Amino acid sequence: MCRIAIYLGPEIALKALLTLPEHSLLKQSWQPRELKYAKLNADGYGYAWFDEENRPLRYVFSEPIWADPNLHELAAGLSSDLWMAFIRSASEGFGNHTANTQPFRTEHLVFMHNGYIETFNHSIRTQLLHQLPHQIQTEIQGNTDSEYLFALIRWLSSQHPNSSLPDLLTRCLEWMDTHLEDEKALLNLALSDGNSVAACRHAFNDDAPSLYYSTEDSNFPDGAQLIASEPLDAAETWHRVPESHILYLRRTHTPELRTL
Amino acid sequence: MCRIAIYLGPEIALKALLTLPEHSLLKQSWQPRELKYAKLNADGYGYAWFDEENRPLRYVFSEPIWADPNLHELAAGLSSDLWMAFIRSASEGFGNHTANTQPFRTEHLVFMHNGYIETFNHSIRTQLLHQLPHQIQTEIQGNTDSEYLFALIRWLSSQHPNSSLPDLLTRCLEWMDTHLEDEKALLNLALSDGNSVAACRHAFNDDAPSLYYSTEDSNFPDGAQLIASEPLDAAETWHRVPESHILYLRRTHTPELRTL
Amino acid sequence: MCRIAIYLGPEIALKALLTLPEHSLLKQSWQPRELKYAKLNADGYGYAWFDEENRPLRYVFSEPIWADPNLHELAAGLSSDLWMAFIRSASEGFGNHTANTQPFRTEHLVFMHNGYIETFNHSIRTQLLHQLPHQIQTEIQGNTDSEYLFALIRWLSSQHPNSSLPDLLTRCLEWMDTHLEDEKALLNLALSDGNSVAACRHAFNDDAPSLYYSTEDSNFPDGAQLIASEPLDAAETWHRVPESHILYLRRTHTPELRTL
Amino acid sequence: MCRIAIYLGPEIALKALLTLPEHSLLKQSWQPRELKYAKLNADGYGYAWFDEENRPLRYVFSEPIWADPNLHELAAGLSSDLWMAFIRSASEGFGNHTANTQPFRTEHLVFMHNGYIETFNHSIRTQLLHQLPHQIQTEIQGNTDSEYLFALIRWLSSQHPNSSLPDLLTRCLEWMDTHLEDEKALLNLALSDGNSVAACRHAFNDDAPSLYYSTEDSNFPDGAQLIASEPLDAAETWHRVPESHILYLRRTHTPELRTL
Repeated sequence: MCRIAIYLGPEIALKALLTLPEHSLLKQSWQPRELKYAKLNADGYGYAWFDEENRPLRYVFSEPIWADPNLHELAAGLSSDLWMAFIRSASEGFGNHTANTQPFRTEHLVFMHNGYIETFNHSIRTQLLHQLPHQIQTEIQGNTDSEYLFALIRWLSSQHPNSSLPDLLTRCLEWMDTHLEDEKALLNLALSDGNSVAACRHAFNDDAPSLYYSTEDSNFPDGAQLIASEPLDAAETWHRVPESHILYLRRTHTPELRTL
Repeated sequence: MCRIAIYLGPEIALKALLTLPEHSLLKQSWQPRELKYAKLNADGYGYAWFDEENRPLRYVFSEPIWADPNLHELAAGLSSDLWMAFIRSASEGFGNHTANTQPFRTEHLVFMHNGYIETFNHSIRTQLLHQLPHQIQTEIQGNTDSEYLFALIRWLSSQHPNSSLPDLLTRCLEWMDTHLEDEKALLNLALSDGNSVAACRHAFNDDAPSLYYSTEDSNFPDGAQLIASEPLDAAETWHRVPESHILYLRRTHTPELRTL
Repeated sequence: MCRIAIYLGPEIALKALLTLPEHSLLKQSWQPRELKYAKLNADGYGYAWFDEENRPLRYVFSEPIWADPNLHELAAGLSSDLWMAFIRSASEGFGNHTANTQPFRTEHLVFMHNGYIETFNHSIRTQLLHQLPHQIQTEIQGNTDSEYLFALIRWLSSQHPNSSLPDLLTRCLEWMDTHLEDEKALLNLALSDGNSVAACRHAFNDDAPSLYYSTEDSNFPDGAQLIASEPLDAAETWHRVPESHILYLRRTHTPELRTL
Repeated sequence: MCRIAIYLGPEIALKALLTLPEHSLLKQSWQPRELKYAKLNADGYGYAWFDEENRPLRYVFSEPIWADPNLHELAAGLSSDLWMAFIRSASEGFGNHTANTQPFRTEHLVFMHNGYIETFNHSIRTQLLHQLPHQIQTEIQGNTDSEYLFALIRWLSSQHPNSSLPDLLTRCLEWMDTHLEDEKALLNLALSDGNSVAACRHAFNDDAPSLYYSTEDSNFPDGAQLIASEPLDAAETWHRVPESHILYLRRTHTPELRTL
């Protein structure tokens, strides 16, 4: 269980998203409001953005966000028009090191997962070991359910190369629906290709983690589209994403909410 | 590529093996003499021993051994009659974090690998993903060739439960012989169950890393049986393990050298 | 603000103090009950014990105790008849690294401080820079109020070499009383020489942090003397140390409670 | 003993200085050519640049540069027209943690020191503890000779507020000349205020570490002014800074070489 924050809009310094809001991810690391299965998000953090050729860049730190000696200076020095940020609450058995720290990224995509899959090692991981192409399996570096979910999405993407980001999330959830039995699976997922972002709020056999969006948070510039596990500022400018919905952000559109 | 040191004999403090010898692992971390494919062993270190019920205990640190603030005090405070110690030189692509730091251990066994498997991700890892039982695959936490080798040994052990430690190493090398093509595979392996230790010096398609043993190093107590990648003290009391041999240490025997 | 636990008695494994009790320091790291100025103790931890020649040995880790990959195996593998253990909640401005992680130790003494000194840099640190002998100042490696308090105690010890441990704590508090103005100073201090332990509960211009002791906790062997910021087990076997008191543990006595 | 690299010129990505050159700092960390008192620079690294209001920003990492999971992505994502970069070889007694990792910076200045002061704790540190204003002493967070040298420079700057950067380095060396006896002191220093850079090559009672500069390295843009402990590329475009000289870089001038 973790917390995420996503920004698409005019270029801003990272700190505007990560540390300055009243209920920033920095604050949510030790004082989250709506975390169900944990008390803290103190097992590392990270963020991703895209370079001028639209390739992902990423920073990860395996200790609590507040303990990072570089937090405030990188947050002041890095600017982008798209941010994907993550604070981690590690699930049992998934060690606190950088191979297990989100966001994950490949050459084109950035992925984040807020949630967990119950008895992952004995159910979904085993099934994915059967089905995933070996090439994709060999790219896995850690052992989290989240990294395997991203591997699943890359496999689905290779099979359906023209899928939009919301399509990929939908296919991922469909695969999970087919392969889960009665294990709980909390699956708030977010995916970006540098131009757009899709994020879903969904769970099987349990309630989904909280998820919100806003285009009216006055602490961000006009044109900002925001997604976060918990409202970053005054709650009245944020809207709850309903369960089993996908939110789709594009530069030239207002946020689009789709049912799954 | 890495360096290892192993001790079986009367109880000694860890420092007698790890830091005090003239050419200790601490020294070999920055000034190894016989390392072929690297210049340093500065990518972490670790050691393992066994508790009174013969269960492995282990310490790992993902930074250089000399940078560990706890090195000298733990090395003074921990004593055992069996030590398996390791300093790491990471191969490209295998990140510097504790999930990739040796020794590895399960409930009964401790394992160390000094060497590497060329193009591992595209050959042996793919084949192991085909063959290893999923239960054993799900125990893998990092992404090194070494951890997969240990998974292979555990699988072989489950299939041949009465195998001795040298038998398990032999079976592992036989499996590799069958599945390798012309990739280089440097496979100095060491395995212990708390009572005995087996270590082999072997490579496919290349020379094996250096390996030595001694029962006469005057800095260790009578009855000491030692194995190390490089002699820990004056070389004349150490013997080179010939290539393609296994060394077998037991409490009640002198070291036994077997051809593979 | 932090939490401490101290044990004197028959030899026990570290885990009996650190991780096994129902309200162990591991639990208090993320769920303390009586912490006033913080919500967590997730800024590192450490413990100290003594070797056969009565010299301190120490382990420190600058990340949360639960994130230490070596926590459980060292806690099982290390045994002693005297333990000083600490979990840290860093005060603002005192970085999360091992030079700032307690316990501190010199050749003969182990020291822990639970509390903080308000506006330390602008008052007490400046005054100590005037008064401490330069030799003692040059032994300081980090920048915490706690490390300066230990330097003060070493200076007092050099001036009054026959002082008992409670005397040293008393002298330290007297020095503070003389030099503090109206700054808050929370000063739960603990000091050990390997044979005995003194711990005080005291504050200037505020309430002191919580502190308890027990000789009847049924999860520890007969003869155990325990001190902890919060009861480690069922509260009815633990007694609150009154404010402005020193508790003195010796091997051959029952705990002695003295007024300051 | 360490290695440094400095860039002033048209805006470039950090990687152009830190990782791409044939003999980059990344390479010099494990294969330096002219390091005298050490074999490696594997005890951390860091870099500094300036924001639009000319305030220093800084990144530090206490492990080897090659072990940083964020090295290549930050080096690609950060751009500036002024870079100060550092790889560390720790002197005995100065722990491997971020409070001891260079560059150091205050609100206006960035400082780097390549060298060491013999018996620092027993000579210069003691004298500085006498002379430095307490306010400046309380800003010290670690225990390296380098951090005390920067404190000395800040004190000199407060006493001579109109001094140029070369003047401050000269005053620092004069103070050292007055206070050193026959201890070796290797003092390659570099100082920047965001607009200009001064770097000196000097030692007392020993030879100074190597230092070079270039304005003609073809891998950098026209207008680049470079300083480095070892030439970053083909040596013929780099010039040795003579001992006891200061090099002064300004945006609107060619590099100026002054005798001390």
